[in-house]
Amino acid sequence: MVVEIEILKKVKVKNGIFIEGMPGVGNIGQIVAAYLIEELKPQLFARLYTSHFDHVTLIRPDGVLQPLAGYFYVHKPSNLIIYYGDQQALTPQGTYELVNKILEFISKIGVKFVITVGGVQTVYKKNVKVYGAVSSAEIKERFKNLDIDFDNAGQNVGSIIGAIGLLTTYSKKYGMEGLCLLAESSTLPYIPDQRGAKAILEILSKILNIEIDLSKIEKKVKEQEELFKKLQKVEKEEEVKEKEKRLSYLG
Amino acid sequence: MVVEIEILKKVKVKNGIFIEGMPGVGNIGQIVAAYLIEELKPQLFARLYTSHFDHVTLIRPDGVLQPLAGYFYVHKPSNLIIYYGDQQALTPQGTYELVNKILEFISKIGVKFVITVGGVQTVYKKNVKVYGAVSSAEIKERFKNLDIDFDNAGQNVGSIIGAIGLLTTYSKKYGMEGLCLLAESSTLPYIPDQRGAKAILEILSKILNIEIDLSKIEKKVKEQEELFKKLQKVEKEEEVKEKEKRLSYLG
Amino acid sequence: MVVEIEILKKVKVKNGIFIEGMPGVGNIGQIVAAYLIEELKPQLFARLYTSHFDHVTLIRPDGVLQPLAGYFYVHKPSNLIIYYGDQQALTPQGTYELVNKILEFISKIGVKFVITVGGVQTVYKKNVKVYGAVSSAEIKERFKNLDIDFDNAGQNVGSIIGAIGLLTTYSKKYGMEGLCLLAESSTLPYIPDQRGAKAILEILSKILNIEIDLSKIEKKVKEQEELFKKLQKVEKEEEVKEKEKRLSYLG
Amino acid sequence: MVVEIEILKKVKVKNGIFIEGMPGVGNIGQIVAAYLIEELKPQLFARLYTSHFDHVTLIRPDGVLQPLAGYFYVHKPSNLIIYYGDQQALTPQGTYELVNKILEFISKIGVKFVITVGGVQTVYKKNVKVYGAVSSAEIKERFKNLDIDFDNAGQNVGSIIGAIGLLTTYSKKYGMEGLCLLAESSTLPYIPDQRGAKAILEILSKILNIEIDLSKIEKKVKEQEELFKKLQKVEKEEEVKEKEKRLSYLG
Repeated sequence: MVVEIEILKKVKVKNGIFIEGMPGVGNIGQIVAAYLIEELKPQLFARLYTSHFDHVTLIRPDGVLQPLAGYFYVHKPSNLIIYYGDQQALTPQGTYELVNKILEFISKIGVKFVITVGGVQTVYKKNVKVYGAVSSAEIKERFKNLDIDFDNAGQNVGSIIGAIGLLTTYSKKYGMEGLCLLAESSTLPYIPDQRGAKAILEILSKILNIEIDLSKIEKKVKEQEELFKKLQKVEKEEEVKEKEKRLSYLG
Repeated sequence: MVVEIEILKKVKVKNGIFIEGMPGVGNIGQIVAAYLIEELKPQLFARLYTSHFDHVTLIRPDGVLQPLAGYFYVHKPSNLIIYYGDQQALTPQGTYELVNKILEFISKIGVKFVITVGGVQTVYKKNVKVYGAVSSAEIKERFKNLDIDFDNAGQNVGSIIGAIGLLTTYSKKYGMEGLCLLAESSTLPYIPDQRGAKAILEILSKILNIEIDLSKIEKKVKEQEELFKKLQKVEKEEEVKEKEKRLSYLG
Repeated sequence: MVVEIEILKKVKVKNGIFIEGMPGVGNIGQIVAAYLIEELKPQLFARLYTSHFDHVTLIRPDGVLQPLAGYFYVHKPSNLIIYYGDQQALTPQGTYELVNKILEFISKIGVKFVITVGGVQTVYKKNVKVYGAVSSAEIKERFKNLDIDFDNAGQNVGSIIGAIGLLTTYSKKYGMEGLCLLAESSTLPYIPDQRGAKAILEILSKILNIEIDLSKIEKKVKEQEELFKKLQKVEKEEEVKEKEKRLSYLG
Repeated sequence: MVVEIEILKKVKVKNGIFIEGMPGVGNIGQIVAAYLIEELKPQLFARLYTSHFDHVTLIRPDGVLQPLAGYFYVHKPSNLIIYYGDQQALTPQGTYELVNKILEFISKIGVKFVITVGGVQTVYKKNVKVYGAVSSAEIKERFKNLDIDFDNAGQNVGSIIGAIGLLTTYSKKYGMEGLCLLAESSTLPYIPDQRGAKAILEILSKILNIEIDLSKIEKKVKEQEELFKKLQKVEKEEEVKEKEKRLSYLG
């Protein structure tokens, strides 16, 4: 067992689009994939298992064991395949093997275009910029009216670590093309970045030409921003108190 | 050589149950497997070798070399297969390979149900709780009258590291079902936890419907608890002495 | 996918010479290979991909994704094959696999001689010495009139880490011979050493019997030496200031 | 390329004995193998290469490159095969693969008995004890008149790390038997232990029933012991000086 795909239902798509979400910066990939799955109600049709994941087994709330896996969903009306991965491969070599297996599998079922999504760590900015990088220069044309920055990705991002870069660049090896979307993310590591995910979902909705109800994630973004404001307020108050204490020592 | 199983005697079981014991928290798995082997006197029928173990060779008291291995025993009257492993695989990838080889092997000789046992690190509690997790929800029904907590395993344990989780969840891939039993363990790392092992043996005896004489492990539990009490007493006395010393400095 | 070579154009050379450049001490290998590619304008005819590279994808200034790769160029007039590698393999085992794949590939297209180039870390010296080591003793004869030190390589270098040593010593396994050139390099780690690269290019131009315009690298060497002098001057001035400060405290 | 054996000359032995020397505690294995090669002048007939060695290439004093390798020699009069290894495998998994390849190879050319030699780290003792461990209990009988301690190896040594343990215990898998000899070694890590090597050579000479001139190693043992005495004397004098200094401060 290296990488195995368990087929639950045979699926074919026409001129299909693939979108994946795996753990990463701001966890944007997983948030986006999970949101699409919740909103579009696609059908689970295959599961991926691999010895390149950690040797960890999950226990669900009902006491049922669940291996670490990747899940393939199909949304027939839009010929969309969504992959939700519990983990990235543990090693670079594992990432290459996982990526090649996924690309081989989706190309056979009719996918022609691979979209990967993730985040780029930055300081907090008022607006979230989304960088884009593509498998071939011609493809940029298709997305020119969208809010994607292709011109500064090379200089400001430079390189992409993990599966999302390999999936898009190696898509060509399997006769597909690819687009990698990277939202600026200012949350601390391990804290899910709802804002970045929303920015990407807005773009995806235009690319896929599907109406996606974004009200739920907009609510989460608001909640997260309110929480941050509260935390900042508490921090400032603490600083003031600290300062007063120090002054009282001196006084 | 990756994983090799040396067959000493061809064995078939009917509707067989598999129980394994490998090193882990409180070493509960190995204690339980070793106790069953000592009490039930099953027959050794196969040995497992793998390059995923450490490159270490044991020297027995009689000066004979012995490779790190896993040992398969059969207890014919109860269609029970017991596996005692010297080691876990050194890497996650090795664990996956080892687990798949074991599951493939036991499914071929007639095992239908896989039980793995281990520990969950907690603070010292007066009573030892045993958490359970299963390969399929229906299975819980079979064990509802036993002292196994399936309802809080998801929340309090969440995930299982190593072979015991993978063996039970991947049992389904080979047409079997599985149960993972995890006893709360409060001993320090590397110190065998007799109390946790006893709690699991009590449950196993009911599941297997075999009379297992627990008097030997009960004696060990008592000895271990007396030792802990002594150690705590010594610690407290030391604390008192320390305090008196400090006071005498000040006085 | 372990090591894959994508053929862009079928190529054969007669009594071909192979020169490679990969990252290493002073980055001399990559500088030399890139300089030859720029000056000789050879033709790209094959690309190498491997899961032994890091799981990293580059973004070009035009926003196009590019996998880490090795590039094979052919310079027909001189039967020269040049390999430019983005990376070394991440592990020793990967290096062995990469090296064997490269040697197998180039031996099949007619290469008879393998030249690898790199650096040896030393203190700054006025003149750069180039050490040489060969796959067979007889070969040294061919290079006796060149400024290569074969006599002290064993004692002063002793062993070579990474692909450049393996490529030359294992060249014999594929019916070729090899020469490894190592320039003394005094730049700090990660700082490209133009001086070392130039010393090697001078030797290569004689071995290959090709006129190579070295004026561009000579300019870079000068710039680098001027920069170093400036840095040293600044350092000295800082030292003097520091000393004066200390004296003023005492005074 | 994982493990490759290059045959220089086809060789068969009758009821052959295999002795190996690889790096390890006190470097006893390599010293013993090298001494046998120097004294018995056996013939080199095969070389082993493996990607489990480090990616390092040696430069010989004559400037010729040499890969890390293992060397097989045959001493026809005594049906002895000697293996001298530049390195151990870098990983446990590599050790298993290397060991199995060596055992498969030597069993095919007629070896029936495998002897491995190494050291056990101890404090300095006046006399060097040699521990022994065997693949099967019956074998001890053959060596009962020799100065080998089989009775305390289990308790005092317990386990053996690396190839020397695996080669002897896994010899049985290939229809051979094995003996592992471990000399007590008190030299600091990386310092070759001539005394331990001599103790093992004395035993080997009796087992092999070959006259081995030990005068050269006896000379080295003497030199090493004199060096240690000098170092100890210097150390003591330093201590005395230190003490006097401290006293003079107080005085």
